[in-house]
Amino acid sequence: MAKLPTTRIATSDASSITIRGRDLVNELIGRHTYTEILYFLTVGRMPKSGETRVLDACLVTLMEHGLTPSAIVARMVADNVPEEPQAAMAAGLLTVGSVFVGTMEGCARILSAGISKGGGDLDSYCREVVAAHRAEKRALPGFGHPIHKPDDPRPPRLFEVAEEAGHSGQHIRLLKQLGAELDRQAGRHLTINATGAIAALLLEIGLPSEALRGIAVVSRAGGLVGHLLEERETHSGRAFWEMIDRGSPYEDPAG
Amino acid sequence: MAKLPTTRIATSDASSITIRGRDLVNELIGRHTYTEILYFLTVGRMPKSGETRVLDACLVTLMEHGLTPSAIVARMVADNVPEEPQAAMAAGLLTVGSVFVGTMEGCARILSAGISKGGGDLDSYCREVVAAHRAEKRALPGFGHPIHKPDDPRPPRLFEVAEEAGHSGQHIRLLKQLGAELDRQAGRHLTINATGAIAALLLEIGLPSEALRGIAVVSRAGGLVGHLLEERETHSGRAFWEMIDRGSPYEDPAG
Amino acid sequence: MAKLPTTRIATSDASSITIRGRDLVNELIGRHTYTEILYFLTVGRMPKSGETRVLDACLVTLMEHGLTPSAIVARMVADNVPEEPQAAMAAGLLTVGSVFVGTMEGCARILSAGISKGGGDLDSYCREVVAAHRAEKRALPGFGHPIHKPDDPRPPRLFEVAEEAGHSGQHIRLLKQLGAELDRQAGRHLTINATGAIAALLLEIGLPSEALRGIAVVSRAGGLVGHLLEERETHSGRAFWEMIDRGSPYEDPAG
Amino acid sequence: MAKLPTTRIATSDASSITIRGRDLVNELIGRHTYTEILYFLTVGRMPKSGETRVLDACLVTLMEHGLTPSAIVARMVADNVPEEPQAAMAAGLLTVGSVFVGTMEGCARILSAGISKGGGDLDSYCREVVAAHRAEKRALPGFGHPIHKPDDPRPPRLFEVAEEAGHSGQHIRLLKQLGAELDRQAGRHLTINATGAIAALLLEIGLPSEALRGIAVVSRAGGLVGHLLEERETHSGRAFWEMIDRGSPYEDPAG
Repeated sequence: MAKLPTTRIATSDASSITIRGRDLVNELIGRHTYTEILYFLTVGRMPKSGETRVLDACLVTLMEHGLTPSAIVARMVADNVPEEPQAAMAAGLLTVGSVFVGTMEGCARILSAGISKGGGDLDSYCREVVAAHRAEKRALPGFGHPIHKPDDPRPPRLFEVAEEAGHSGQHIRLLKQLGAELDRQAGRHLTINATGAIAALLLEIGLPSEALRGIAVVSRAGGLVGHLLEERETHSGRAFWEMIDRGSPYEDPAG
Repeated sequence: MAKLPTTRIATSDASSITIRGRDLVNELIGRHTYTEILYFLTVGRMPKSGETRVLDACLVTLMEHGLTPSAIVARMVADNVPEEPQAAMAAGLLTVGSVFVGTMEGCARILSAGISKGGGDLDSYCREVVAAHRAEKRALPGFGHPIHKPDDPRPPRLFEVAEEAGHSGQHIRLLKQLGAELDRQAGRHLTINATGAIAALLLEIGLPSEALRGIAVVSRAGGLVGHLLEERETHSGRAFWEMIDRGSPYEDPAG
Repeated sequence: MAKLPTTRIATSDASSITIRGRDLVNELIGRHTYTEILYFLTVGRMPKSGETRVLDACLVTLMEHGLTPSAIVARMVADNVPEEPQAAMAAGLLTVGSVFVGTMEGCARILSAGISKGGGDLDSYCREVVAAHRAEKRALPGFGHPIHKPDDPRPPRLFEVAEEAGHSGQHIRLLKQLGAELDRQAGRHLTINATGAIAALLLEIGLPSEALRGIAVVSRAGGLVGHLLEERETHSGRAFWEMIDRGSPYEDPAG
Repeated sequence: MAKLPTTRIATSDASSITIRGRDLVNELIGRHTYTEILYFLTVGRMPKSGETRVLDACLVTLMEHGLTPSAIVARMVADNVPEEPQAAMAAGLLTVGSVFVGTMEGCARILSAGISKGGGDLDSYCREVVAAHRAEKRALPGFGHPIHKPDDPRPPRLFEVAEEAGHSGQHIRLLKQLGAELDRQAGRHLTINATGAIAALLLEIGLPSEALRGIAVVSRAGGLVGHLLEERETHSGRAFWEMIDRGSPYEDPAG
């Protein structure tokens, strides 16, 4: 039988659990926060305090934005499967897709590619990236917001936290430069949005862009716990259903 | 059209986001950790530092235990849907069910019921609960572990953290009392396991038992981010599939 | 390494695929319908034509009921993850839970238990079952409907199909007897609903009650394909979100 | 409040349910098979009998292939959440993604694009498509199979069924032409696989390529019902877990 690949994540025996070389009981529980271990499991080393602060700020930013699709879906599933809250949470988390939150990764890839090219030609890089998106009529990931106009209030605060934590570097600078170029070519102002700012901050603290969707899922999972508790009291899922069913007119296909 | 229920969770306008009465940008981002906001969204008030420490300890305890069903399932889905990591995470989180982690809630309900009865008759409460489970040959939730024998190493550390944080109270005492009674009636030692200890600690810091499954999902979600990153390198999902397919003999139903 | 359990379902080699002892290519494809193979995979033998007709009738009954939670959830996920329709379908299918469709299994268990007791005491069985549910103020699974009053139009047609197909037997009789007893004890008429009738029909054709939830999932999956196609044109998921978000008043928790 | 979009799928009142203009009770239940209604809901008109036969053949082909990722994932979730089989099925269905089954859509898009270009230049179309995939070292969707070598046994039977049903037309011809060109450019034989053949057959009977993933989900859902029944007896999910956990060596990250 074929061998299975190795894992560097964890092992255990009757009396101990080892997580990436550390003893869970004696080195991790009670000594590190959830956010620190999330960083540890994602990056492979313990974060410095500034990195933890930036990661916490990003996680807190995305935890809650009210009745978003993730919350609505989770509430409706919970109304139908009240005994298994993880089913409601899983359904809600499936919405953390390419359309809204996934722009975080698209933005991260653009920032990473620009930085890895490096050097003095970031001006031309910004011009080309913005022009290419405009030519294909694609939105530039990390910019624009349907509600928060003219400016998303979260990015300035996130940049401030990064600055205070000593992690305001080239990715954040490039994001701002892209924004200026986008405004110039578009002839109007488009805000840097929260997912754009978070993409830049998470790259600053060393997270790989492949981890960003997962980080968003973790953040949103935290918010859903509160939604499911409120759902037990208000039974909103049932009300959503009735409103949608009654409010959607039926049109005879033969008509 | 029927009115929708109110929500106490969040609202927003063009320039601000309000989470349970607090301004996200000015009061939460950069000022509170993920764990603090998780508590805030779940309990409805900001935690004191001892409460945060206990919640962090519980979250860290469940984040990672190697190749558990949640990790295996997430890796196999990621191998088939690499572009949408949230699908892999959602599938993995669906395993956070009644069989293993859900014992946390069963244990919490037993502890809560005992405490709310209150008073000096906890001895008889323990005798009755243990006897009832033994009579129906049901495992007492929160006790026993297939690998960690004779004792799960995590509960003593969790109790220590609760003690240090000033949150070692009646729920933890009742859990230990139940364990002693279980050993007496069973005539052998059964360990308090991690989900039992976490149930007691989370009740000590004021979380409702209805939130416990969600807390477990949040914890495990953090661990899955690392598994999905490793999966990109090792392609373990493909190897699991081959091993299972080749290792499972086919038996002719007519045979 | 421990051995894996055997499977009686399928095996394959370079040039053939064997499903429960039959050659997929030469014996199944083009010779049997989806419904026949569903029966074959569930019961372990090919259905007779009357059994197929009953199973088809049950599947068709549950495929579509408009904007139910499964369709609403699937549409909202599709709006957020348009590239992976299986994520939308999976999320929608998670709603096929205990609250509505799952009553099918509860009803099937009651019918099976009554029949296996057998004999002339079905009168007293019905009296006891109805009385027990009424005493605990629990709905009798398979009875009542929020919209279809006084009578769900589907069960009479399902009973007719079963009669025509030669599969109207003791489970259907017991279901009707339970309904009469329920009306008597309640002092008012409660309809046999579609899930109750389907439970009885599926037991008549030999399906195990453990398969019923899965059959419901298959049925509903077929309906969701059409919803996802319509979603591509109408973008209803976005409209549902806006309506819910704007229609749910925020209440300040401190207020 | 904004209006919701109309729906052409279904409506109901107290005494009737209307599906795309047909009365569910009097026109559909007992008169049409599951496969016919699946076609009806997907294409918007009732199928002719040849179309039904082709759709059934395609559905039956994908229902079962033993311990594939969808079955393994479903079994592992069922082992952890035995009370809610729809959670296991949903998790399993999440694997119906771009890597294996999703190639069906890629193939369908290539076939559709070729046909809509039309005319006598299909030779050059095939040359260009194959050359483009080879230049980018991408697999041509619908061709090749890891196990079924040199030839997948399912496509010839599917083509035969299409022929018998009167639905062997230009999409199937183009698929074969692509295969010949692929062999020529590759200098070796690559089989048309089942997803390629199904893509061609489903286009022949008028299904939109956007529906193909959903059709695959429906097909696979039918197979999972049998896997979950077997899982109740063999507890394979537990065995898979143990084998994977024990068989995956831990490597110290610091090592």
